[in-house]
Amino acid sequence: MELFSDEYFMNEALKQARIAFEEGEIPVGAVIVSKNRIIARAYNQTEKLNDVTAHAEMIAITAAANYMGAKYLPDCKLYVTLEPCTMCGGALFWSQIGTVIFGASDPKRGFRQLDSSILHPKTQLQTGVLAQQSEELLNEFFKKLRK
Amino acid sequence: MELFSDEYFMNEALKQARIAFEEGEIPVGAVIVSKNRIIARAYNQTEKLNDVTAHAEMIAITAAANYMGAKYLPDCKLYVTLEPCTMCGGALFWSQIGTVIFGASDPKRGFRQLDSSILHPKTQLQTGVLAQQSEELLNEFFKKLRK
Repeated sequence: MELFSDEYFMNEALKQARIAFEEGEIPVGAVIVSKNRIIARAYNQTEKLNDVTAHAEMIAITAAANYMGAKYLPDCKLYVTLEPCTMCGGALFWSQIGTVIFGASDPKRGFRQLDSSILHPKTQLQTGVLAQQSEELLNEFFKKLRK
Repeated sequence: MELFSDEYFMNEALKQARIAFEEGEIPVGAVIVSKNRIIARAYNQTEKLNDVTAHAEMIAITAAANYMGAKYLPDCKLYVTLEPCTMCGGALFWSQIGTVIFGASDPKRGFRQLDSSILHPKTQLQTGVLAQQSEELLNEFFKKLRK
Protein backbone atom coordinates (compact mmCIF):
# COMPACT_ATOMS: atom_id res chain seq x y z
CA MET A 1 0.00 0.00 0.00
CA GLU A 2 1.34 3.36 -1.00
CA LEU A 3 1.78 5.66 1.96
CA PHE A 4 0.65 9.19 1.37
CA SER A 5 2.34 12.22 2.85
CA ASP A 6 0.81 14.97 4.99
CA GLU A 7 1.18 17.24 1.95
CA TYR A 8 -0.86 14.83 -0.14
CA PHE A 9 -3.76 14.85 2.33
CA MET A 10 -3.54 18.60 2.90
CA ASN A 11 -3.72 19.04 -0.85
CA GLU A 12 -6.96 17.06 -0.80
CA ALA A 13 -8.22 19.42 1.92
CA LEU A 14 -7.20 22.35 -0.31
CA LYS A 15 -9.30 20.89 -3.12
CA GLN A 16 -12.28 21.04 -0.75
CA ALA A 17 -11.41 24.65 0.12
CA ARG A 18 -11.43 25.48 -3.61
CA ILE A 19 -14.95 24.04 -3.94
CA ALA A 20 -16.00 26.37 -1.10
CA PHE A 21 -14.33 29.27 -2.94
CA GLU A 22 -16.25 28.49 -6.15
CA GLU A 23 -19.50 28.40 -4.17
CA GLY A 24 -18.88 31.80 -2.54
CA GLU A 25 -18.04 30.34 0.86
CA ILE A 26 -15.01 31.32 2.94
CA PRO A 27 -12.56 28.80 1.46
CA VAL A 28 -11.73 26.28 4.16
CA GLY A 29 -11.54 22.56 3.47
CA ALA A 30 -10.92 19.45 5.55
CA VAL A 31 -10.38 15.74 5.19
CA ILE A 32 -10.24 13.04 7.86
CA VAL A 33 -7.90 10.12 7.35
CA SER A 34 -8.00 6.68 8.95
CA LYS A 35 -5.36 4.07 8.18
CA ASN A 36 -3.98 6.14 5.31
CA ARG A 37 -7.42 6.47 3.66
CA ILE A 38 -9.67 9.50 3.41
CA ILE A 39 -12.94 8.70 5.17
CA ALA A 40 -14.47 12.20 5.12
CA ARG A 41 -14.16 15.28 2.91
CA ALA A 42 -15.87 18.56 3.70
CA TYR A 43 -15.79 22.27 3.04
CA ASN A 44 -17.26 25.29 4.75
CA GLN A 45 -20.97 25.62 3.96
CA THR A 46 -22.15 28.29 6.38
CA GLU A 47 -23.69 30.40 3.60
CA LYS A 48 -25.34 27.63 1.63
CA LEU A 49 -26.78 25.93 4.71
CA ASN A 50 -27.45 29.24 6.45
CA ASP A 51 -25.87 27.75 9.54
CA VAL A 52 -22.94 29.11 11.52
CA THR A 53 -22.12 25.59 12.75
CA ALA A 54 -21.48 24.25 9.22
CA HIS A 55 -17.70 24.64 9.29
CA ALA A 56 -15.63 22.14 7.28
CA GLU A 57 -14.30 20.47 10.45
CA MET A 58 -17.77 20.01 12.00
CA ILE A 59 -19.15 18.41 8.85
CA ALA A 60 -16.04 16.22 8.57
CA ILE A 61 -16.27 15.04 12.21
CA THR A 62 -19.93 14.08 11.78
CA ALA A 63 -19.20 12.30 8.49
CA ALA A 64 -16.17 10.43 9.87
CA ALA A 65 -18.07 9.26 12.96
CA ASN A 66 -20.85 8.08 10.70
CA TYR A 67 -18.37 6.18 8.52
CA MET A 68 -16.58 4.64 11.50
CA GLY A 69 -19.80 3.84 13.35
CA ALA A 70 -18.12 5.34 16.39
CA LYS A 71 -18.38 8.64 18.18
CA TYR A 72 -14.68 8.83 19.04
CA LEU A 73 -11.90 9.13 16.48
CA PRO A 74 -8.64 8.35 18.31
CA ASP A 75 -7.09 6.66 15.25
CA CYS A 76 -7.98 9.45 12.85
CA LYS A 77 -6.15 12.49 11.52
CA LEU A 78 -7.89 15.72 10.59
CA TYR A 79 -6.27 17.82 7.86
CA VAL A 80 -7.75 21.30 7.65
CA THR A 81 -6.51 24.22 5.58
CA LEU A 82 -7.04 26.83 8.32
CA GLU A 83 -6.53 26.71 12.07
CA PRO A 84 -9.82 25.57 13.64
CA CYS A 85 -11.93 28.09 15.55
CA THR A 86 -13.02 27.68 19.18
CA MET A 87 -16.20 25.82 18.23
CA CYS A 88 -14.30 23.37 16.04
CA GLY A 89 -11.53 23.03 18.62
CA GLY A 90 -14.19 22.14 21.19
CA ALA A 91 -15.73 19.58 18.83
CA LEU A 92 -12.27 18.10 18.18
CA PHE A 93 -11.81 17.81 21.93
CA TRP A 94 -15.01 15.78 22.28
CA SER A 95 -14.03 13.58 19.32
CA GLN A 96 -10.73 12.62 20.98
CA ILE A 97 -9.25 12.72 17.48
CA GLY A 98 -5.71 11.35 17.24
CA THR A 99 -4.09 14.15 15.26
CA VAL A 100 -5.00 17.63 14.08
CA ILE A 101 -2.95 19.05 11.21
CA PHE A 102 -3.74 22.51 9.94
CA GLY A 103 -2.34 24.77 7.24
CA ALA A 104 -2.60 28.49 7.76
CA SER A 105 -2.81 30.00 11.23
CA ASP A 106 -5.82 32.12 12.17
CA PRO A 107 -4.50 34.77 14.54
CA LYS A 108 -7.99 36.24 14.98
CA ARG A 109 -10.36 33.32 15.49
CA GLY A 110 -8.06 30.30 15.80
CA PHE A 111 -8.55 28.14 18.88
CA ARG A 112 -4.96 28.73 19.99
CA GLN A 113 -5.75 32.40 20.61
CA LEU A 114 -8.00 31.41 23.45
CA ASP A 115 -6.26 28.53 25.10
CA SER A 116 -3.98 25.97 23.48
CA SER A 117 -5.19 23.31 25.91
CA ILE A 118 -8.61 23.21 24.26
CA LEU A 119 -7.81 19.97 22.37
CA HIS A 120 -7.96 16.57 24.06
CA PRO A 121 -4.72 15.83 25.95
CA LYS A 122 -4.15 12.78 23.73
CA THR A 123 -4.48 14.78 20.49
CA GLN A 124 -1.29 15.54 18.57
CA LEU A 125 -1.08 18.93 16.87
CA GLN A 126 0.88 19.80 13.74
CA THR A 127 0.74 23.17 12.01
CA GLY A 128 1.81 24.97 8.84
CA VAL A 129 1.33 22.20 6.24
CA LEU A 130 0.79 23.93 2.87
CA ALA A 131 -0.01 27.07 4.84
CA GLN A 132 0.92 29.37 1.96
CA GLN A 133 -1.50 27.77 -0.50
CA SER A 134 -4.29 28.05 2.05
CA GLU A 135 -3.51 31.68 2.82
CA GLU A 136 -3.36 32.62 -0.86
CA LEU A 137 -6.80 31.11 -1.43
CA LEU A 138 -8.26 32.95 1.58
CA ASN A 139 -6.65 36.24 0.55
CA GLU A 140 -8.00 35.87 -2.97
CA PHE A 141 -11.47 35.25 -1.57
CA PHE A 142 -11.52 38.29 0.68
CA LYS A 143 -9.98 40.48 -2.03
CA LYS A 144 -12.80 39.43 -4.38
CA LEU A 145 -15.38 40.01 -1.65
CA ARG A 146 -14.20 43.56 -1.01
CA LYS A 147 -14.52 44.51 -4.68
CA MET B 1 -50.01 38.52 24.30
CA GLU B 2 -49.07 36.76 27.50
CA LEU B 3 -45.44 37.29 28.39
CA PHE B 4 -43.65 34.22 29.64
CA SER B 5 -40.98 34.28 32.29
CA ASP B 6 -37.42 32.95 32.08
CA GLU B 7 -38.54 30.15 34.39
CA TYR B 8 -41.29 29.19 31.95
CA PHE B 9 -38.86 28.85 29.05
CA MET B 10 -36.22 27.10 31.17
CA ASN B 11 -38.89 24.64 32.22
CA GLU B 12 -39.50 23.93 28.54
CA ALA B 13 -35.75 23.30 28.18
CA LEU B 14 -35.97 20.94 31.18
CA LYS B 15 -38.71 19.00 29.39
CA GLN B 16 -36.26 18.49 26.54
CA ALA B 17 -33.60 17.36 29.02
CA ARG B 18 -36.06 14.79 30.40
CA ILE B 19 -36.60 13.38 26.91
CA ALA B 20 -32.81 12.97 26.66
CA PHE B 21 -32.83 11.23 30.05
CA GLU B 22 -35.51 8.78 28.90
CA GLU B 23 -33.46 8.01 25.79
CA GLY B 24 -30.29 7.30 27.75
CA GLU B 25 -28.59 10.54 26.75
CA ILE B 26 -26.85 12.90 29.17
CA PRO B 27 -29.91 15.00 30.08
CA VAL B 28 -29.38 18.46 28.65
CA GLY B 29 -32.13 20.37 26.89
CA ALA B 30 -32.43 23.72 25.14
CA VAL B 31 -34.98 26.01 23.59
CA ILE B 32 -34.48 29.15 21.53
CA VAL B 33 -36.99 31.96 21.87
CA SER B 34 -37.72 34.82 19.49
CA LYS B 35 -40.31 37.49 20.32
CA ASN B 36 -41.61 35.49 23.28
CA ARG B 37 -42.14 32.35 21.15
CA ILE B 38 -40.19 29.10 21.12
CA ILE B 39 -38.73 28.62 17.64
CA ALA B 40 -36.47 25.65 18.39
CA ARG B 41 -36.45 22.80 20.90
CA ALA B 42 -33.61 20.30 21.20
CA TYR B 43 -31.95 17.80 23.49
CA ASN B 44 -28.60 16.12 23.58
CA GLN B 45 -28.41 13.30 21.01
CA THR B 46 -24.73 12.37 20.94
CA GLU B 47 -25.45 8.70 21.61
CA LYS B 48 -28.38 8.25 19.26
CA LEU B 49 -26.71 10.12 16.40
CA ASN B 50 -23.27 8.75 17.28
CA ASP B 51 -21.96 12.27 16.91
CA VAL B 52 -20.07 14.31 19.50
CA THR B 53 -21.29 17.52 17.86
CA ALA B 54 -24.98 16.72 18.52
CA HIS B 55 -25.30 18.76 21.71
CA ALA B 56 -28.70 20.33 22.47
CA GLU B 57 -27.40 23.85 21.81
CA MET B 58 -25.88 22.95 18.41
CA ILE B 59 -29.10 21.32 17.22
CA ALA B 60 -31.11 24.28 18.54
CA ILE B 61 -28.89 26.86 16.78
CA THR B 62 -29.20 25.02 13.46
CA ALA B 63 -32.99 24.69 13.87
CA ALA B 64 -33.46 28.32 14.89
CA ALA B 65 -31.39 29.61 11.95
CA ASN B 66 -33.43 27.41 9.67
CA TYR B 67 -36.68 28.76 11.12
CA MET B 68 -35.52 32.39 10.92
CA GLY B 69 -34.01 31.99 7.47
CA ALA B 70 -30.99 33.79 8.87
CA LYS B 71 -27.58 32.70 10.06
CA TYR B 72 -27.38 35.25 12.87
CA LEU B 73 -29.69 35.28 15.88
CA PRO B 74 -29.23 38.68 17.57
CA ASP B 75 -32.89 38.88 18.61
CA CYS B 76 -33.03 35.37 20.07
CA LYS B 77 -32.58 33.95 23.56
CA LEU B 78 -31.13 30.50 24.20
CA TYR B 79 -32.33 28.70 27.33
CA VAL B 80 -30.19 25.68 28.14
CA THR B 81 -30.31 23.55 31.28
CA LEU B 82 -26.52 23.22 31.63
CA GLU B 83 -23.69 25.69 31.03
CA PRO B 84 -22.60 25.30 27.38
CA CYS B 85 -19.24 23.63 26.64
CA THR B 86 -16.44 25.25 24.63
CA MET B 87 -17.79 23.92 21.33
CA CYS B 88 -21.27 25.28 22.01
CA GLY B 89 -19.85 28.53 23.36
CA GLY B 90 -17.92 28.90 20.11
CA ALA B 91 -21.05 28.20 18.07
CA LEU B 92 -23.00 30.74 20.14
CA PHE B 93 -20.26 33.28 19.41
CA TRP B 94 -20.68 32.76 15.65
CA SER B 95 -24.48 32.98 15.95
CA GLN B 96 -24.26 36.42 17.63
CA ILE B 97 -27.23 35.29 19.72
CA GLY B 98 -28.80 38.04 21.81
CA THR B 99 -28.98 36.26 25.17
CA VAL B 100 -27.71 33.01 26.67
CA ILE B 101 -29.49 31.80 29.81
CA PHE B 102 -28.31 28.60 31.42
CA GLY B 103 -29.36 26.60 34.49
CA ALA B 104 -26.69 24.53 36.21
CA SER B 105 -23.02 25.48 36.02
CA ASP B 106 -20.54 22.98 34.56
CA PRO B 107 -17.32 23.53 36.49
CA LYS B 108 -15.52 20.85 34.43
CA ARG B 109 -16.46 21.46 30.81
CA GLY B 110 -18.38 24.74 30.87
CA PHE B 111 -17.13 27.45 28.51
CA ARG B 112 -16.48 29.83 31.40
CA GLN B 113 -13.70 27.58 32.67
CA LEU B 114 -11.67 28.43 29.60
CA ASP B 115 -12.35 32.08 28.96
CA SER B 116 -15.50 34.00 29.75
CA SER B 117 -14.97 36.20 26.70
CA ILE B 118 -15.78 33.32 24.35
CA LEU B 119 -19.30 34.62 23.66
CA HIS B 120 -19.96 37.47 21.25
CA PRO B 121 -19.41 40.87 22.93
CA LYS B 122 -23.06 41.74 22.23
CA THR B 123 -24.42 38.58 23.89
CA GLN B 124 -26.01 38.93 27.33
CA LEU B 125 -25.38 36.11 29.80
CA GLN B 126 -27.67 35.02 32.63
CA THR B 127 -27.03 31.99 34.83
CA GLY B 128 -28.64 29.81 37.46
CA VAL B 129 -32.26 29.72 36.20
CA LEU B 130 -33.84 26.49 37.57
CA ALA B 131 -30.29 25.28 38.21
CA GLN B 132 -31.38 22.89 40.95
CA GLN B 133 -33.86 21.01 38.76
CA SER B 134 -31.22 20.63 36.06
CA GLU B 135 -28.60 19.40 38.52
CA GLU B 136 -30.99 16.89 40.07
CA LEU B 137 -31.77 15.43 36.67
CA LEU B 138 -28.07 15.17 35.77
CA ASN B 139 -27.21 13.62 39.14
CA GLU B 140 -30.00 11.07 38.75
CA PHE B 141 -28.70 10.17 35.29
CA PHE B 142 -25.11 9.62 36.39
CA LYS B 143 -26.24 7.72 39.50
CA LYS B 144 -28.27 5.39 37.29
CA LEU B 145 -25.34 5.05 34.87
CA ARG B 146 -22.94 4.00 37.61
CA LYS B 147 -25.28 1.24 38.83
